[in-house]
Amino acid sequence: MPSTKIKGYEIYYEVYGKGETIVLLNGIMMSTSSWNSFIDVFSRNNRLVLIDFLDQGKSQKSDKPYDQKLQSDIVKGVIDELKIDKIHLVGVSYGGEVALNFALKYQENLSSLILANTTSYTTQLLRDVGKCWNYAAKNHDGRAFFKATMPFIYSVEFYEENIDWLKKREDLFVTIFDDAWYEAYIRLVDSAENLDIREEIEKIKVPTLIISAEYDITTPIRYQKVIHEKIQNSKWVLIKGSGHASMYEKPQEFASNILGFINTYDEEIKIV
Amino acid sequence: MPSTKIKGYEIYYEVYGKGETIVLLNGIMMSTSSWNSFIDVFSRNNRLVLIDFLDQGKSQKSDKPYDQKLQSDIVKGVIDELKIDKIHLVGVSYGGEVALNFALKYQENLSSLILANTTSYTTQLLRDVGKCWNYAAKNHDGRAFFKATMPFIYSVEFYEENIDWLKKREDLFVTIFDDAWYEAYIRLVDSAENLDIREEIEKIKVPTLIISAEYDITTPIRYQKVIHEKIQNSKWVLIKGSGHASMYEKPQEFASNILGFINTYDEEIKIV
Amino acid sequence: MPSTKIKGYEIYYEVYGKGETIVLLNGIMMSTSSWNSFIDVFSRNNRLVLIDFLDQGKSQKSDKPYDQKLQSDIVKGVIDELKIDKIHLVGVSYGGEVALNFALKYQENLSSLILANTTSYTTQLLRDVGKCWNYAAKNHDGRAFFKATMPFIYSVEFYEENIDWLKKREDLFVTIFDDAWYEAYIRLVDSAENLDIREEIEKIKVPTLIISAEYDITTPIRYQKVIHEKIQNSKWVLIKGSGHASMYEKPQEFASNILGFINTYDEEIKIV
Amino acid sequence: MPSTKIKGYEIYYEVYGKGETIVLLNGIMMSTSSWNSFIDVFSRNNRLVLIDFLDQGKSQKSDKPYDQKLQSDIVKGVIDELKIDKIHLVGVSYGGEVALNFALKYQENLSSLILANTTSYTTQLLRDVGKCWNYAAKNHDGRAFFKATMPFIYSVEFYEENIDWLKKREDLFVTIFDDAWYEAYIRLVDSAENLDIREEIEKIKVPTLIISAEYDITTPIRYQKVIHEKIQNSKWVLIKGSGHASMYEKPQEFASNILGFINTYDEEIKIV
Repeated sequence: MPSTKIKGYEIYYEVYGKGETIVLLNGIMMSTSSWNSFIDVFSRNNRLVLIDFLDQGKSQKSDKPYDQKLQSDIVKGVIDELKIDKIHLVGVSYGGEVALNFALKYQENLSSLILANTTSYTTQLLRDVGKCWNYAAKNHDGRAFFKATMPFIYSVEFYEENIDWLKKREDLFVTIFDDAWYEAYIRLVDSAENLDIREEIEKIKVPTLIISAEYDITTPIRYQKVIHEKIQNSKWVLIKGSGHASMYEKPQEFASNILGFINTYDEEIKIV
Repeated sequence: MPSTKIKGYEIYYEVYGKGETIVLLNGIMMSTSSWNSFIDVFSRNNRLVLIDFLDQGKSQKSDKPYDQKLQSDIVKGVIDELKIDKIHLVGVSYGGEVALNFALKYQENLSSLILANTTSYTTQLLRDVGKCWNYAAKNHDGRAFFKATMPFIYSVEFYEENIDWLKKREDLFVTIFDDAWYEAYIRLVDSAENLDIREEIEKIKVPTLIISAEYDITTPIRYQKVIHEKIQNSKWVLIKGSGHASMYEKPQEFASNILGFINTYDEEIKIV
Repeated sequence: MPSTKIKGYEIYYEVYGKGETIVLLNGIMMSTSSWNSFIDVFSRNNRLVLIDFLDQGKSQKSDKPYDQKLQSDIVKGVIDELKIDKIHLVGVSYGGEVALNFALKYQENLSSLILANTTSYTTQLLRDVGKCWNYAAKNHDGRAFFKATMPFIYSVEFYEENIDWLKKREDLFVTIFDDAWYEAYIRLVDSAENLDIREEIEKIKVPTLIISAEYDITTPIRYQKVIHEKIQNSKWVLIKGSGHASMYEKPQEFASNILGFINTYDEEIKIV
Repeated sequence: MPSTKIKGYEIYYEVYGKGETIVLLNGIMMSTSSWNSFIDVFSRNNRLVLIDFLDQGKSQKSDKPYDQKLQSDIVKGVIDELKIDKIHLVGVSYGGEVALNFALKYQENLSSLILANTTSYTTQLLRDVGKCWNYAAKNHDGRAFFKATMPFIYSVEFYEENIDWLKKREDLFVTIFDDAWYEAYIRLVDSAENLDIREEIEKIKVPTLIISAEYDITTPIRYQKVIHEKIQNSKWVLIKGSGHASMYEKPQEFASNILGFINTYDEEIKIV
């Protein structure tokens, strides 16, 4: 799979299928490989682009601090490299924040914007959560890191039903996450620390879908309310019974919502 | 547009487009013409079938009481007439109740089942609401009927924003609804009075999507919880900020959810 | 029990017990006798005053339209008659609206203000609901009236559990509500039609408790949110599992909340 | 203030006021001194008993693991020492869990039971949260510990409004929490790890009030639903706008609910 140099960093990406382009932006702990189960469904009628952000997956590690605006420039770099003019940009959590930043700078490249489990500003509470995660990450201790982060990611319902799978994931964390991963992770957390674009996002005019999850405690529903109120005519749906990682807990509902929006965003249905 | 004789009644239906078939079943006060704004979006990649139930729109009026099972037989009659084997069956409210009945009797004809703002049983409260509606209907007084029914149909948010449109609709009610319409309407309400298939719907095994609306007071979210708990692996989403008539209040979200599900129901996304 | 002439009308009231005074203001369909089960608990350590509003219970009927400001003057008249300076004013629904009006005009007479299931403005939807109720009332038909109003008053949960009690109440409606009752009722509904004091209630500075009910569809939680945001430092609690008539559905929680607030309102508990 | 030997441990407690006895049981990070602001309001008409659990505040530290049943025996020991027969037992979070255990063993000593922000079982997710807290505690690093725990304790709304107060608390953590405190804290967390009395609590028949908080993510509303469904006729209220530490975020509502219940629990209000 290809990579390209953007802003001085080697950035890894993957491309599948044909049709209008969907770009999926990762959450903070994810990478292109997190989307394996989704490749078929999203590339059936669309070109699908996956990207590892700077400091994620197979992309280069950074040697200095940065913010999410740089990540949005990286997304722009990838679509330029692919000579794509218009994309449906889908972001989850951290990826949604980057997507908002992208929309503010490169709105003309967007056919639509889809924000799952996203906030437009890092609250004081989220900042402390991030610092706690970084604290666990600094010790490069997979089990501690897992226990510091997972309760923010999954609903208690998912936890109870999938405890064996979760414990296997914890074993995996211990095995595969090395020091470099943790250092990169800490920089990713820090890059979101000062996010606050509440006053700017009203400039976003492209068709926008906001996806909330009922039991999301990391970016709870009222965070998306802020976005909904600012982005005029944004559409807003909620996935029942899911925690923050709606793509993992309710993958079918997650994909269905996104593909439904992409298939209908350009067809205004006028009733009133 | 065609009609056909089913169970002794002349039943009106409309067909648009090509592809896998979507059948949209009306709410109680609706008719095929209520879907005008949706024809384009639903027939773009699909064959779309609209049906006026017995006692609705251009279908024949009944001369005796009946229940929703008869309406599900009527749906079956239409798809047989069209020689269609598999359908995506979408029902809203009353139509969702008929869709559930259809699924219980003709499950082999379903590719998927989509239930918007639906209940699996008529509660004592809904029964009294129905009787109040019939009381207003019996007087064939459009303004009274409008005020008895609309507060159950729309959210207060929609009411406030669209009061002029609503008042125009009220004027319309007065003009177009004649005695025969009210008599038919009363029979439709009565046909749902004894619905209670809570214990049966666990037999439904086809991919099912349940759509709730945040401010639905006629079939509130907890009615759909009953359905979700009974139909194994049913998917469940909620449209934010909408009342009972989610297709009118949030048409884009309504269509998007349905088309997204129809595009993904056969592609199992396995994470855990 | 005594009555007194206020604003030209003979107003009926009842007084029980000793201590700081609690005045309970009726909902629209209630009267002093609706509080029978509550007299003991509210008069144990307090003086309790019950009042039939103009056009309610044993108070005089009006011969012309009026608004809720007149009802608040009537409350003032009763406490003046009783030579009471300070009261805890508790209103439910219509009574809460009168209580808000009272607070705007006679704030110096309030020790505290308690608003159960209350709105600060009559929405377009509520206006239509009121007109539907009046439509049923105009026919002086108890059964129709019952079915037009009860689904707005009780939760579906209460309905299912207490259907026999409700049907007995319906029989009672038919028996005891006479033409004069219905005429008075219609005037009461009309007196609330133009309520909109959203912009004024920020002037209310007395300790205020707002009580919502989880399943209230007549004055849903978001109506109380408006009040909470306007009245600085107002306290806000919610009774789980109850519909609009929280005093009937959850009498213990209703009384407990009120008495708890009355016992603590003057003792500021400072943590931060 | 006195202490007494119970089960071999020196247990510290405080007693204020006269009247029916209220016993307030601490949350896990609290001590008797956490209730300073509440002493006046709770002892005005009642005898108030505060207790430091084993491993809390001025009570003795344990030298071995234990579970919450031991803590309930300690509560029993204190009231025996005080020769009190009947108490209103109020527990918050960890204290609520001990209160449930107390009710199962010493129900005859209860006038009423009040459970704020309580669960009847430690979910897998809570267990991992506990382990994360212990991880931070093991390093005896106040700032890390603060950031690991506070986001579970307070709502984002409280966080935003009181960030200065929170930062001062963090400074305090660093200063006053010594190694012994952290060791004790870890044992307290471990004592709750295996809580699961879901199948037993239906035996609780005393008047019970359940207090939820709208934004509680540690013991969210659906944890209290389990308790409400099991304890017959338990009453259930919710404090709007509060996180897990409802006593800190909404002290007035917290105290009001408790005192209201204590003043009304013995006065059955019968409507239906």
